[in-house]
Amino acid sequence: MGITLAWKAIGIFDSGVGGLTVLKEVVKTLPQEDTIYFGDTARFPYGTKSPETVIRYSLEIASFLVKRDIKLLVVACNTASAVSLEALQNELSIPIVGVIEPGARRAVATTRSGKVGVIGTEGTIKSSAYAKAIKRMNQEVEVITRACPMFVPLAEEGWVDNEVARLTARTYLQGLTEEGVDTLVLGCTHYPLLKGVIADVMGNGVKLVDSAEETARAVAEILRNNGLLRPSSEKGNHHYFVTDVPAGFIRIGNRLLGEKLGDVYQVSLDDNRESEEPKGEAE
Amino acid sequence: MGITLAWKAIGIFDSGVGGLTVLKEVVKTLPQEDTIYFGDTARFPYGTKSPETVIRYSLEIASFLVKRDIKLLVVACNTASAVSLEALQNELSIPIVGVIEPGARRAVATTRSGKVGVIGTEGTIKSSAYAKAIKRMNQEVEVITRACPMFVPLAEEGWVDNEVARLTARTYLQGLTEEGVDTLVLGCTHYPLLKGVIADVMGNGVKLVDSAEETARAVAEILRNNGLLRPSSEKGNHHYFVTDVPAGFIRIGNRLLGEKLGDVYQVSLDDNRESEEPKGEAE
Repeated sequence: MGITLAWKAIGIFDSGVGGLTVLKEVVKTLPQEDTIYFGDTARFPYGTKSPETVIRYSLEIASFLVKRDIKLLVVACNTASAVSLEALQNELSIPIVGVIEPGARRAVATTRSGKVGVIGTEGTIKSSAYAKAIKRMNQEVEVITRACPMFVPLAEEGWVDNEVARLTARTYLQGLTEEGVDTLVLGCTHYPLLKGVIADVMGNGVKLVDSAEETARAVAEILRNNGLLRPSSEKGNHHYFVTDVPAGFIRIGNRLLGEKLGDVYQVSLDDNRESEEPKGEAE
Repeated sequence: MGITLAWKAIGIFDSGVGGLTVLKEVVKTLPQEDTIYFGDTARFPYGTKSPETVIRYSLEIASFLVKRDIKLLVVACNTASAVSLEALQNELSIPIVGVIEPGARRAVATTRSGKVGVIGTEGTIKSSAYAKAIKRMNQEVEVITRACPMFVPLAEEGWVDNEVARLTARTYLQGLTEEGVDTLVLGCTHYPLLKGVIADVMGNGVKLVDSAEETARAVAEILRNNGLLRPSSEKGNHHYFVTDVPAGFIRIGNRLLGEKLGDVYQVSLDDNRESEEPKGEAE
């Protein structure tokens, strides 16, 4: 039983292309595993949408991935992790890993001052998911949060190192530096692209936490504990599904992964049609 | 026949709340008409999505509105107007009015130097819809375009008059001022919110064109020519449908319209379910 299950793929989903940073870490940690990545690029972004809508979208995607027989689901999107995890757990019988819990664990392990900052989308911050997770791990840690809605469009526009980016970072983060946080959780997969300006504003004393590595570690642990790891002599295959035409996803994805993506398929969740030809060669 | 048709409503759709500026002008010009507004707030924004996806969404919304028996469809979204108009015209038998054609007409009538600037979303600018429409009206007019993807998130964040907004406007618009345009089309329903900083950067000599008024005029003309106007002694009713929970739409909508919105219903196009209670009182 364990052996047949082990051959199944790991499913990973995000509102768009940003979750590929999580995929990258999963593949680095577990190169023997097959993965299926789902990017809901047509309905991106999730961070500005209501919890109800994000939950509905997350359930649709999970159902699509479960039909492809995955053994574990990674919710690589911070907003979806923050609001949909419980609904997904009620619906699915496979293990589910979000990015909030691993990011929170890393932050608690990192802070010395006991003051942790968390930045994310409107949806993630409103949910208080990070603050709750951190408090569950250590009641003493003080959590200061800030929604930074302009960071995603800045990263998408490629304005990661200009005067607008610096001024925006200062506007959002000034309060956090004044509060004296020594650890800052980048609670959105896009934010690592702005690491440079964020680090400049926060100053040398502040450690930035990116959930991707920690999430990959959690995935490996769960698979190992459940006897679901493929033999490490294997080499995994990687498939990609997106809801908008794949050209933009492929362009940014190649940059994020630092290598050429495999086949990218466009699918429509609305009517369960699915284009059959891979668009991996499109550019 | 004309008389029964005249009692039908005008359908207006947009990717979100911005199209209410067009609704406002339509109601000002034709207070006797019923309207049905559709804001696809769950899938907002359209400006960053591919033409294929925007066309699919536009057709879904048009089909929803046609089932509610409208007599004319206004595509208040610039991106949808730019890429979906032909597909909609092939599908529907009622008159369809986009915002591109009216905005282009106003720009051609306004310019003295013969140099018109057009700003809009990535989708609108890539389509060249404004440039083509302007050239059709006057071959001599030179059109200089610029996509300004950060303007929508700035307007949504309420950063319409701070240093980030000014710096962003300068970064995008510098080239247009150097080209010597004397007329600038605000080719996105959100951009009028940034009128102040845009006007500052462009300088006194440049006229800003907002399509809403001109679009309302086109609607009135078509209805009149087809004998579809309601008697001017009537007073129209206004209904609103959105795809995300209505709270945000109501909040921004009240501000845009300068009065309280009527009933706002949340609907799901994916599965044609529809919540039956109006959410007009929610805040």
